[in-house]
Amino acid sequence: MTRSITIFDTTLRDGTQGEGISLSADDKLKIAIKLDELGVHYIEGGNPGSNGKDVEFFRRVQELGLKAKITAFGSTRRKGASAEDDENLKRIAESGAQAATLVGKSWDFHVHTALQTTLEENLAMIEDSIRYLKKRGLEVIFDAEHFFDGYKHNSEYAKSVLRAASEAGADWLVLCDTNGGTMPDEIRDAVTALVTEMPEARLGIHTHNDCELAVANALSAVAAGALQVQGTINGYGERCGNANLCSVIPNLQLKFGLNCLPEEKLMQLVPTARYVSEIANVHMPNGQPYVGSAAFAHKGGIHVSAILRDSRTYEHIRPELVGNKQRVLVSELAGQSNLISKAQELGIDLDPKSPQASETINRIKDLEHRGYQFEGADASLELLLREADGEVQELFTFESFKMLVEKSAGKPVVSEAFVKLRIGGESLYTAGEGNGPVNALDNALRKALLHYYPKLTDMHLSDYKVRVLDDKEATASKVRVLIESRDAKNAWSTVGVSGNVIEASWEALVDSMRYALLGQQPQETTASVHGAEPRPGLLNH
Amino acid sequence: MTRSITIFDTTLRDGTQGEGISLSADDKLKIAIKLDELGVHYIEGGNPGSNGKDVEFFRRVQELGLKAKITAFGSTRRKGASAEDDENLKRIAESGAQAATLVGKSWDFHVHTALQTTLEENLAMIEDSIRYLKKRGLEVIFDAEHFFDGYKHNSEYAKSVLRAASEAGADWLVLCDTNGGTMPDEIRDAVTALVTEMPEARLGIHTHNDCELAVANALSAVAAGALQVQGTINGYGERCGNANLCSVIPNLQLKFGLNCLPEEKLMQLVPTARYVSEIANVHMPNGQPYVGSAAFAHKGGIHVSAILRDSRTYEHIRPELVGNKQRVLVSELAGQSNLISKAQELGIDLDPKSPQASETINRIKDLEHRGYQFEGADASLELLLREADGEVQELFTFESFKMLVEKSAGKPVVSEAFVKLRIGGESLYTAGEGNGPVNALDNALRKALLHYYPKLTDMHLSDYKVRVLDDKEATASKVRVLIESRDAKNAWSTVGVSGNVIEASWEALVDSMRYALLGQQPQETTASVHGAEPRPGLLNH
Repeated sequence: MTRSITIFDTTLRDGTQGEGISLSADDKLKIAIKLDELGVHYIEGGNPGSNGKDVEFFRRVQELGLKAKITAFGSTRRKGASAEDDENLKRIAESGAQAATLVGKSWDFHVHTALQTTLEENLAMIEDSIRYLKKRGLEVIFDAEHFFDGYKHNSEYAKSVLRAASEAGADWLVLCDTNGGTMPDEIRDAVTALVTEMPEARLGIHTHNDCELAVANALSAVAAGALQVQGTINGYGERCGNANLCSVIPNLQLKFGLNCLPEEKLMQLVPTARYVSEIANVHMPNGQPYVGSAAFAHKGGIHVSAILRDSRTYEHIRPELVGNKQRVLVSELAGQSNLISKAQELGIDLDPKSPQASETINRIKDLEHRGYQFEGADASLELLLREADGEVQELFTFESFKMLVEKSAGKPVVSEAFVKLRIGGESLYTAGEGNGPVNALDNALRKALLHYYPKLTDMHLSDYKVRVLDDKEATASKVRVLIESRDAKNAWSTVGVSGNVIEASWEALVDSMRYALLGQQPQETTASVHGAEPRPGLLNH
Repeated sequence: MTRSITIFDTTLRDGTQGEGISLSADDKLKIAIKLDELGVHYIEGGNPGSNGKDVEFFRRVQELGLKAKITAFGSTRRKGASAEDDENLKRIAESGAQAATLVGKSWDFHVHTALQTTLEENLAMIEDSIRYLKKRGLEVIFDAEHFFDGYKHNSEYAKSVLRAASEAGADWLVLCDTNGGTMPDEIRDAVTALVTEMPEARLGIHTHNDCELAVANALSAVAAGALQVQGTINGYGERCGNANLCSVIPNLQLKFGLNCLPEEKLMQLVPTARYVSEIANVHMPNGQPYVGSAAFAHKGGIHVSAILRDSRTYEHIRPELVGNKQRVLVSELAGQSNLISKAQELGIDLDPKSPQASETINRIKDLEHRGYQFEGADASLELLLREADGEVQELFTFESFKMLVEKSAGKPVVSEAFVKLRIGGESLYTAGEGNGPVNALDNALRKALLHYYPKLTDMHLSDYKVRVLDDKEATASKVRVLIESRDAKNAWSTVGVSGNVIEASWEALVDSMRYALLGQQPQETTASVHGAEPRPGLLNH
């Protein structure tokens, strides 16, 4: 029978220890729903003893009727006190959570240095706290903090901690590599020994990424017999993060052949990872294993031509298994085959032997020669390919823009932009202010377009990159601007190149709006409906 | 005796396959110098057979006299042809590189599907190509592409590929997990078997991060007997990247206790990682293991109080070992010793206990908090430290600047800048045009300053980089500008930060001129000597 591994998600608790990550109770509830849909077994929601926000989460999550077990986190009772009088334990018991994660010390050094108590009192703190929670009907997951450091320095004491927890009724004994400094072989050896010595125990593993080994260490423990993995979506967590469940789960399921999630759920991994990164407002690295947008992106020409013959040549799994997709990056390193397959990917029928195809390829090659780079600007490339197909039209006829930045001593800098263009028969002249020149241009251009293309309100610029292409002449040389834009569902990137950073930004900006409005026609009706309103495009304020 | 592991860096070759990474020949040379300073043993510079930029790199890198072996990359000869007639092999042999990395197929499926040739011809291609390069005096590193996939499907053929390469004279046999799909235990088992069967071979490992296991897989191979690790700085590379040397090296050295770099070099890991990310213009994740700014940052209250008692409680190594530092919100003491030693290095006598020292340190900390980064801007830092010493004065009193960019349909874009300032008692108002806004500002400012500081003619701006600091709001968020300037002898870098890219550029521009003119006084005499000439500063054209 295939072994089943229990997935314990702590995105909402340990994940929020990551730098720059802060989740409201609402955010946590939204993420909990997604995690439940993904099929994780435990959702650790927070620490009701330390945080009012978390108390609210535990109260409201009960109304959602999730399948996952909702879990509250806390420490063992205070030294020299009674569990009955411990405010934190009481809050856990009253939180409404079905399970509790109780963290206790298993490294003698920590007992002395951090707790400043005796080894015996630490054991009593663990036992009392577990008994308290078990008596109140909660399942108890005991997290043995710094277990591997403790095992290395005083293995007898580390094991006595596990035995104390087990005897007090803990349902799971989770071995934590809290500082993230343990090597995979050390993990394997320790877990192997414990499986032999405590065959009845259900062991779990909780690892951190300080040596870039959190995923490997979790796998190592599972290979040696651990039955539960604790981790976070996208590996969020303190310092270098926790074990990344978006890598742990597909590795266990597709490589080890173990059961974690229901089989059909695995393809929700990509949407879940992206959703959580959106809610947490943290940029997801393109190269993130399995779920990143570049995880199955191919650049080298040899790779691309082999991929077109058989995708197994350069892909370790079918990207669809985790909800991802193959992408071909177009770059000077590759050639025609990249472009043709890119067109195929977009559903554009570009016959490689047609004159349009060779014209488009020459145009793209010419642009690349002039410094454009499309591997980071999929949307600009798509616009070019769709133009070859006759699909795309311009949004407006450009007449001019002006951009003014002014700074006087002791006053804040001011950016203003003025845009003149025509849509249909109408001439528009708009002005916009902004935090910087591109923001001012964006604002002025939006003012002009918004009444014709109301869909623009849904999109915003989310990233902006500038690169000097030839550093021999610096400010007199060419620059390439990449702009990333987003709406509620998608992100897309566009490129502009010029000797002038403002002109390059304008190009990328216009492309980003053209892409957002693919297939849209100017809404003349909207314009006349709003005829009585002051039309920003005409008022020029 | 402690085993030594050879570090083979392929940042400049496989690293540039990463999405959004594009390096000019100049960029590559700069990075090669840093890698050599770090002490890596091989620097793979690129593929001279596919790319003119790489040919230039190999020509110019020879003049630098680096200690690392410079290595050129290429594939085995074409099927059915002779190695003597192979243009790519010829370019490698003529590149001036001391070593060649030759990639050949070791997975039978790939021989049939990608090469579309016979298993025998593939062996001949490998042998011929290695003999060709060895005959021309190059050391040959044979990269067995897809070795672990090949070993899994047809281990006899995969091993016959290694034997063919070895018999043809390859100095290293490097086992590649090209698709990144292999598990650490599979790597260990394969390497263990090979070490037994081919005891004379020097084996290397080349892994990819598609399962978030590139570092673990490299370690697994070393544990089983591999003697060389191939990887990239920051793990750059195609799809999910290559094995990250910034994690592999400290793991091998501090955890496995093996020799890689000279001991005193390990603390250059952080500056090297950050330098490469600056040149590649790729944001370095805060949470990157070992070298990220959050790798030793403590957020949790319990962690912080324990850390203050004994940093071993929550740190797996001393951060200084890799050139990093602990960050604790309550402690402002971390950076002080760095700054004092920087001042000493510059010959500035900054008494750590003086009020000037603590004032300067607070000022720098405040600037860093606002987004300034002095790692890539030594000249700006030096100016701040010399100001503390009373050495530096302003070149002029700023009154205002205006910057105008104008573009009309069918006409070239125009950039103009207007600068108003005072030097001594004199008011100056100048105008400058330029290829772009920063060039126009540079020209206008030069016009104003040149008669007072003729030494400015010697310097020019040589590089310009812009980074958005917070991608949550894109064009409305802060940007950091780095400007590199040069004169005949030196290069120096300065930084500016603002919500407005033009203001940030102005700051960095003014700093670059202040640095160029360190110790200079305005030449009033020169101004009067030239009194008869039209003074551009006063003419305002």
